[in-house]
Amino acid sequence: MKKLNVGIIGYGFMGRTHSNAYCMVNHFFNVAYKPQLQVICGLEDNVAKAFAEQWGYKSHTTDWHKVIEDDSIDIVDICVPNNVHAEIAIAAAKAGKMIICEKPLALNGEEAKTMTEAVEKAQVANLVSFNYRRVPAVTLAKMLIDEGRLGRIFHYRANFLQDWTISEQVPQGGVGTWRLDVKAAGSGVTGDLLAHCIDTAMWQNGRIKSVCAMTETFIKERKHVETGKVEPVGIDDACTFMCRFDNGSLGNFESTRYARGHKALYTFEINGEHASLAWDLHDLHRLSYFDHADESIVRGWRSIHVTDSDMPYMDKWWVPGLQIGYEHTFVHQIADFLDGLEKGEPARPTFREALATQYVCDAVLSSAKTNTWQNIQNPV
Amino acid sequence: MKKLNVGIIGYGFMGRTHSNAYCMVNHFFNVAYKPQLQVICGLEDNVAKAFAEQWGYKSHTTDWHKVIEDDSIDIVDICVPNNVHAEIAIAAAKAGKMIICEKPLALNGEEAKTMTEAVEKAQVANLVSFNYRRVPAVTLAKMLIDEGRLGRIFHYRANFLQDWTISEQVPQGGVGTWRLDVKAAGSGVTGDLLAHCIDTAMWQNGRIKSVCAMTETFIKERKHVETGKVEPVGIDDACTFMCRFDNGSLGNFESTRYARGHKALYTFEINGEHASLAWDLHDLHRLSYFDHADESIVRGWRSIHVTDSDMPYMDKWWVPGLQIGYEHTFVHQIADFLDGLEKGEPARPTFREALATQYVCDAVLSSAKTNTWQNIQNPV
Amino acid sequence: MKKLNVGIIGYGFMGRTHSNAYCMVNHFFNVAYKPQLQVICGLEDNVAKAFAEQWGYKSHTTDWHKVIEDDSIDIVDICVPNNVHAEIAIAAAKAGKMIICEKPLALNGEEAKTMTEAVEKAQVANLVSFNYRRVPAVTLAKMLIDEGRLGRIFHYRANFLQDWTISEQVPQGGVGTWRLDVKAAGSGVTGDLLAHCIDTAMWQNGRIKSVCAMTETFIKERKHVETGKVEPVGIDDACTFMCRFDNGSLGNFESTRYARGHKALYTFEINGEHASLAWDLHDLHRLSYFDHADESIVRGWRSIHVTDSDMPYMDKWWVPGLQIGYEHTFVHQIADFLDGLEKGEPARPTFREALATQYVCDAVLSSAKTNTWQNIQNPV
Amino acid sequence: MKKLNVGIIGYGFMGRTHSNAYCMVNHFFNVAYKPQLQVICGLEDNVAKAFAEQWGYKSHTTDWHKVIEDDSIDIVDICVPNNVHAEIAIAAAKAGKMIICEKPLALNGEEAKTMTEAVEKAQVANLVSFNYRRVPAVTLAKMLIDEGRLGRIFHYRANFLQDWTISEQVPQGGVGTWRLDVKAAGSGVTGDLLAHCIDTAMWQNGRIKSVCAMTETFIKERKHVETGKVEPVGIDDACTFMCRFDNGSLGNFESTRYARGHKALYTFEINGEHASLAWDLHDLHRLSYFDHADESIVRGWRSIHVTDSDMPYMDKWWVPGLQIGYEHTFVHQIADFLDGLEKGEPARPTFREALATQYVCDAVLSSAKTNTWQNIQNPV
Repeated sequence: MKKLNVGIIGYGFMGRTHSNAYCMVNHFFNVAYKPQLQVICGLEDNVAKAFAEQWGYKSHTTDWHKVIEDDSIDIVDICVPNNVHAEIAIAAAKAGKMIICEKPLALNGEEAKTMTEAVEKAQVANLVSFNYRRVPAVTLAKMLIDEGRLGRIFHYRANFLQDWTISEQVPQGGVGTWRLDVKAAGSGVTGDLLAHCIDTAMWQNGRIKSVCAMTETFIKERKHVETGKVEPVGIDDACTFMCRFDNGSLGNFESTRYARGHKALYTFEINGEHASLAWDLHDLHRLSYFDHADESIVRGWRSIHVTDSDMPYMDKWWVPGLQIGYEHTFVHQIADFLDGLEKGEPARPTFREALATQYVCDAVLSSAKTNTWQNIQNPV
Repeated sequence: MKKLNVGIIGYGFMGRTHSNAYCMVNHFFNVAYKPQLQVICGLEDNVAKAFAEQWGYKSHTTDWHKVIEDDSIDIVDICVPNNVHAEIAIAAAKAGKMIICEKPLALNGEEAKTMTEAVEKAQVANLVSFNYRRVPAVTLAKMLIDEGRLGRIFHYRANFLQDWTISEQVPQGGVGTWRLDVKAAGSGVTGDLLAHCIDTAMWQNGRIKSVCAMTETFIKERKHVETGKVEPVGIDDACTFMCRFDNGSLGNFESTRYARGHKALYTFEINGEHASLAWDLHDLHRLSYFDHADESIVRGWRSIHVTDSDMPYMDKWWVPGLQIGYEHTFVHQIADFLDGLEKGEPARPTFREALATQYVCDAVLSSAKTNTWQNIQNPV
Repeated sequence: MKKLNVGIIGYGFMGRTHSNAYCMVNHFFNVAYKPQLQVICGLEDNVAKAFAEQWGYKSHTTDWHKVIEDDSIDIVDICVPNNVHAEIAIAAAKAGKMIICEKPLALNGEEAKTMTEAVEKAQVANLVSFNYRRVPAVTLAKMLIDEGRLGRIFHYRANFLQDWTISEQVPQGGVGTWRLDVKAAGSGVTGDLLAHCIDTAMWQNGRIKSVCAMTETFIKERKHVETGKVEPVGIDDACTFMCRFDNGSLGNFESTRYARGHKALYTFEINGEHASLAWDLHDLHRLSYFDHADESIVRGWRSIHVTDSDMPYMDKWWVPGLQIGYEHTFVHQIADFLDGLEKGEPARPTFREALATQYVCDAVLSSAKTNTWQNIQNPV
Repeated sequence: MKKLNVGIIGYGFMGRTHSNAYCMVNHFFNVAYKPQLQVICGLEDNVAKAFAEQWGYKSHTTDWHKVIEDDSIDIVDICVPNNVHAEIAIAAAKAGKMIICEKPLALNGEEAKTMTEAVEKAQVANLVSFNYRRVPAVTLAKMLIDEGRLGRIFHYRANFLQDWTISEQVPQGGVGTWRLDVKAAGSGVTGDLLAHCIDTAMWQNGRIKSVCAMTETFIKERKHVETGKVEPVGIDDACTFMCRFDNGSLGNFESTRYARGHKALYTFEINGEHASLAWDLHDLHRLSYFDHADESIVRGWRSIHVTDSDMPYMDKWWVPGLQIGYEHTFVHQIADFLDGLEKGEPARPTFREALATQYVCDAVLSSAKTNTWQNIQNPV
């Protein structure tokens, strides 16, 4: 089994999920490559050191350039705030590294386009971590759609609802709260949460043609961790948009961090001529399915407990009835990435596909500013 | 449409559900008979009078014998505490009245046998009000079982859980609380709640062969409304029993009035070789169904919303998606009773079938007293 | 108890629900008036005659003017297609009748305004049948909001999803399908379904300030029952709109008749600073409630089974745990209407409140046509 | 951090869950010890070799005595069929090894007693792998009970329902199906599944005093993998038992492998005077809680999504809303075991506590054979 040396930049929440995925993947998946945790990079030396010890990294650094310059590194894995993605990714591409980048790909479409061109020019393997594609129930949904079971699609609906920023005491900027700082994050729920919904939606239901959005910033000023001052909030706290897909179906998307009672309620529902599908991240191991072809007196929404071994990825885990959790999506992602290397078919979404999602996010934000419908730019 | 004059004895909870059923039945069901609310009988004259006015009865009385002696009365409907069922029913049978009797049929099997013989000798139409058979979802379950969809049955499980007697302040005896007085009720949850479960179970799954039970009275003494004194409680507060059915399946039944959080959680679940069914009175308009023959990747419990017009009874009501409620079971019961008169096929359960349920209740109570398995007496 | 003679115009689905409500109301509610089913009016004489017999009407007619001209009639109850509401209501007002009118009030705001002025000039009691306000769980939601439990409101979300027109074989026009004929209905899901959502939303959350909508007609041509020809479909099959409320909260509304698997999935969810609420017509007897003030380790969405006697309207019905159904909303509506007469406080929504809903519907349709945000006209 | 060398005996399903736990524990928990996967032992040399490579074991063997004799081994982890537990555990105790043993502890109480005495005599750390105690929602339930929130307990109900042996084609004996072979397993669902329920129940609700059980073997003969012949089935396919706890509450337990539609439906519900709790392994990240002290109009079952950082174990994992899965219970188990070593307080259940569970299992089986109530032997 060929070893691949990994350098992860960013030791936060995503640094942990990615580290764990590299540790677990070979225990459960038979792939041709074996990732090695080589170096962890983060802002604070002592934190990076502790992280390296806890996860078994061979070294640590506070300078991401060192990771790029290290010839032993095969994969650069970018887990830092959005405003640093572009610089690192472009440098890594130039250095010929494979790149796995957290989502959203960039602050905006322009940046994302530059990054996409860089990795394509360098011909390096590249993947954006839209991990929810790899929840088995979500992958199953995609399979069922691709088999044509739903028939003509009429509606696609997705929500991503949270409630963690309702308090005015939550600051902007800094560790854990950089997502509220528009300079670090680029946008609020649009890039952080709706980007997931858009990625899944276009994967399942095809290209979005046009959007019309409304955003709101409920709390207008928050203390900034770095400056220590109360500053205007530049992000969107909430965003709703309607859209039309290329296939003629209608979309309705909403995200907010002000939906009291919901922690990570990412849901989607797809209504087709023959069947419908619904899913919810809060119970990620289930898929709801309604098939109009069922005999009428026993017709009803089915709650599919996605744990049997014929379900996507589930032959690698336990036995029927025993659910997996959130972090498994990252294990699946690395397994697919490694599998793609072996087969010469890149795991998805590549930077180019993530660029398409970025263009939708841009159009959403632009629509909300102008109160007009916006057409989506085509990345291909 | 032939008119049928009805006399109801008892103006309590059941007096209301039955009165309502007679009022509603002809508005929704095309039956050959039209019930007329003729006389209401109850203990207090002023209450009976007010009840008669509210419901449109032509007269009221405090003496049930008057109802029996009234030649204009076609149907005697018994809605009084259990300890008065036998006397009234036997007198009504002798007077040639049709009889609808609330459940349980009697205080015990012996009484029930006498009553059954009386109505059969008199050849009068007779029905015991096990109304839950006529929840559309429950009727649907029976249909699916009879069609053989479940295959060999392995398990039958039923619960009836309430929580209204947890407080020591609840008295025994009197209006609303006679169910805690063993003299009026005969038993506690066994006759009041498990009788429903047993009736449904034997209707769906055939005869019970033997039982082994455990009962408990958690609060040993309660004030008696009639005597004003604290007296020993003679009823079973909770009862659990295991059983074996004639068809080889195993049964597990439990009822209590000490299940905090459950008001009327009557549930059943049936596990067969090919399929399973589950139902819950708290959401009575749904039936859960699992069919192993479903293609594996879309297999799951179906939640059937029993409101379409091809569902039992539902063509009489509204449109798909709009649920009916509790009292409709009594309307269905009267509709079936009237339909049975027209067709010459008695609506079920008759007294004789209810006698079988009574025998199971007797065996359950006897088993709990003796800590032994008990075989069930065969009523036929 | 004073008798009130009722004439219902229209013997369809709503003619049945209203007839039933008049029959049941005095059995369960102690009100000062007793409605009498006097005359039923409908297009076909034999159908009207059969309906009159089934429900106990004293007479029937095919000419609605007769109902208006009949001096014995106190209440005119309008259950006909939307395009006839105005003419009948205005005539009834001039004749001094009390008026109960099915929703939506009219084909458009202009008509609704004329009707509103007519009833106000005539000073007759008037009510529009937005019956879902009177589902106990929905009324409870309103109570909880009015008590301030939710705090500042951030989001209001409502859907009304059906699937009954997916087949191209469903015609437009005629009995049961007039809702697809734009001439009879005025609009599609906007007036039929979203009108309900808007009425409830503004009742619970205050005035809507501006809207931005998208509509679609998935099946462009359908056979017309009256002409026998395939004709263009003029209604909206689906409608999604975003909005801003006066209180600063954001709204997201969607309705369609192409959501496979949903029969009458009317749902709403309200997210406030302190608490959230959610409800679903498919399980109308439950309200979901999340209270952030709950102790954190036992915090979770509560499923309130709205059947206890301290719940709105529920002291009139059965006992805890036993659910009521769809038609009870109409009984509650009549009870409140009669109660309003007695107290001199009109039951709501009056024509004037329904006019506000009509203005929102007009703005929604206009927005969808022009792809622009529309401000809402204020009816007061 | 002190290293602890681990030898696992058995490379089946449990061998995987335990291996994974040792790999993950130090990445998420700050404990004073660091387990090292030293040797894996299993029947087939090539399988053991492949397993060792996949999981990073330093060596492999087919002879479990080698593991015991290896001085470098600190922990012997027993993941083999039940009939080999005793021999290995006793030898390991004599060799002074710490022991982690899969459940049930032994084939019967007698064996379990000998094992318990052996580990106590040797004074080695010992733990039985009743992993479901360490589902965060289950641990939370225990906490809430211990805080006295439920008040006096009336009822304890538990089920463990599966459906994997309904087909007559499932053999007995051999890999994956040794659980159907009475010689290897000792019993059927009683030792395999009810043992879990009993362990959790006694942990949460105290000692069981007496039991009355019913068992059934639905399929009487199955092909034996080892002999190749059709042989009588000696295990219980299904087992139901009633019981009385020391605290006066009533228990109702059921397990089967013939409940079509349920894969691993381990559920429990506890009804107390003030509150109730319910849990279900199929959605293991949720706990249902009903608190009668809630204000009546907002009272309802709460669905607690056990992912917040103040929930048991959950501060070690991700962020609120993101669920963990089945295998995490084993990680928690090892973390607690290591923590117990550090603190000198053994993680539970020890062999002695598991012996109590074994005595209940014995009594259950004995009761079913004799059709009588059985008192439980006290292990202390």
